[in-house]
Amino acid sequence: MTATPTTTATPTETVPARFSINQATVKQLGLPELATACTDLGVRRVGLWREPVHAYGLAETARLMRDAGLTVTTLCRGGFLTDIEARARGWAIDDNKAAIDEAATLGTDTLVLVSGGLPKGSRDLHGARERIAEALTELAPYAADRSVRLAIEPLHPMFASDRCVVSTLSQALDLAERFPADQVGVCVDTYHVWWDDTAPAHIARAGATGRLHAFQLADWITPLPQGVLNGRGQLGEGAIDMREWHAYMEAAGYAGPIEVELFNEELWAGDGRELLAETAKRFRISLSGGDL
Amino acid sequence: MTATPTTTATPTETVPARFSINQATVKQLGLPELATACTDLGVRRVGLWREPVHAYGLAETARLMRDAGLTVTTLCRGGFLTDIEARARGWAIDDNKAAIDEAATLGTDTLVLVSGGLPKGSRDLHGARERIAEALTELAPYAADRSVRLAIEPLHPMFASDRCVVSTLSQALDLAERFPADQVGVCVDTYHVWWDDTAPAHIARAGATGRLHAFQLADWITPLPQGVLNGRGQLGEGAIDMREWHAYMEAAGYAGPIEVELFNEELWAGDGRELLAETAKRFRISLSGGDL
Repeated sequence: MTATPTTTATPTETVPARFSINQATVKQLGLPELATACTDLGVRRVGLWREPVHAYGLAETARLMRDAGLTVTTLCRGGFLTDIEARARGWAIDDNKAAIDEAATLGTDTLVLVSGGLPKGSRDLHGARERIAEALTELAPYAADRSVRLAIEPLHPMFASDRCVVSTLSQALDLAERFPADQVGVCVDTYHVWWDDTAPAHIARAGATGRLHAFQLADWITPLPQGVLNGRGQLGEGAIDMREWHAYMEAAGYAGPIEVELFNEELWAGDGRELLAETAKRFRISLSGGDL
Repeated sequence: MTATPTTTATPTETVPARFSINQATVKQLGLPELATACTDLGVRRVGLWREPVHAYGLAETARLMRDAGLTVTTLCRGGFLTDIEARARGWAIDDNKAAIDEAATLGTDTLVLVSGGLPKGSRDLHGARERIAEALTELAPYAADRSVRLAIEPLHPMFASDRCVVSTLSQALDLAERFPADQVGVCVDTYHVWWDDTAPAHIARAGATGRLHAFQLADWITPLPQGVLNGRGQLGEGAIDMREWHAYMEAAGYAGPIEVELFNEELWAGDGRELLAETAKRFRISLSGGDL
């Protein structure tokens, strides 16, 4: 680990209060290391993923976060609700209920949903989206009873077949609006919506009905890697004007945490603490002028 | 070359009249081989690309196509009109005029435009789209004088930064509708629009104003390869319901040629004549029931 100027700035100067580090961004750090790094750098908020939480233990993670004074901004992720076959659908519902319970235990009010792709052999996007709605009729009240909101995250259209048939904010809101706003809303991630000139209008639509439940940042860089999953850019490295999207969210009344969620093999190969410090610094610079 | 049943069917049984083979699909074939293969198999229409046409010679290609009785359905491609710097913009305009001249010489009425990505260092998608419109004010009448129509092709949003800032049919029509319909329309490619639940409405919009200038097919398969350019699926291999999109086009009044345009390293590694025969067969099967 080399101590570069970018990683030795005084924490209080570099970490805005609304900054949240999504655990996936620094997945080279185990949960205790993450908690320590956040404390050392002055980061107060984290987004967690179920798999590392399971590995460390749910109650143990909740205690670790509490003891470190960290707020869990979201849990990633529920979803994958597009199966056709009854038994698979039952499993998915049960797994999502477990995710909701975990979110409640971790003290976060938001479970992010990645809806799921086309079932094998199916070409019916519309049908898949309807099955998501059907599953939400069971999951939304279950979540509400535990003070957890579901945040449907539209994923970039390049994931439409294999990961998420909900490709736009418009589609996500069409689903969410069938349910009460405090039960189902959306997660806006710049990486997934930046290309869409209708997205700003749908951010406003979501804000007007109280459905902006999460906001995540990642930059768009090319060339995309094989499989396109782990090619997200560090803030400032790519094509997305972060300040512009933050302004849309602010104008729509969003005042919650702002997570940075990067999946990037190259960043994961480096030092996790340095990456956290660098990400917080870039967050501050990329969004300078906004309410942070 | 192995003679499988799929490649030995009688040509007249397998090649619908509206089928057009885009040269890129079988790029392992030189132009004379392509012409011979088309004649042998009963294919009457081809879409051409500028680079191989230049390599073979423009006049020679026009003669080859004429002698083989082949109709050139489109020329790919003009575009790349998003540069900011004046000299680069001038070069782009000149190059597009050359492409229009080439289209006229080849006897096709349609030049496909891939609009161009974000200039280096720019994050302004809106500005880039406006520069396309500006360039079209010069190119559209130039093309019309030569009986060539410009077809703006929206590319999948995964190409928005580096190849084409026009990501949806809606955006393409917003540009096209600033010009007369017989000068500027759109190219609908299933690969680029299949995920978009608003696309059918915009196909209808384009049909109503006479702007459906080209129709291309490719299937969506995953995982996407590194760089995401050459991962298009053979018809029937992927997530797209070709019959459904053909029905949208028919309902919108489109009765023109239907090109198959696949970029796929694996397909290119095989025998070009077999690939042509297989593609024509899959075209017939994938669209069966429609007007072909």
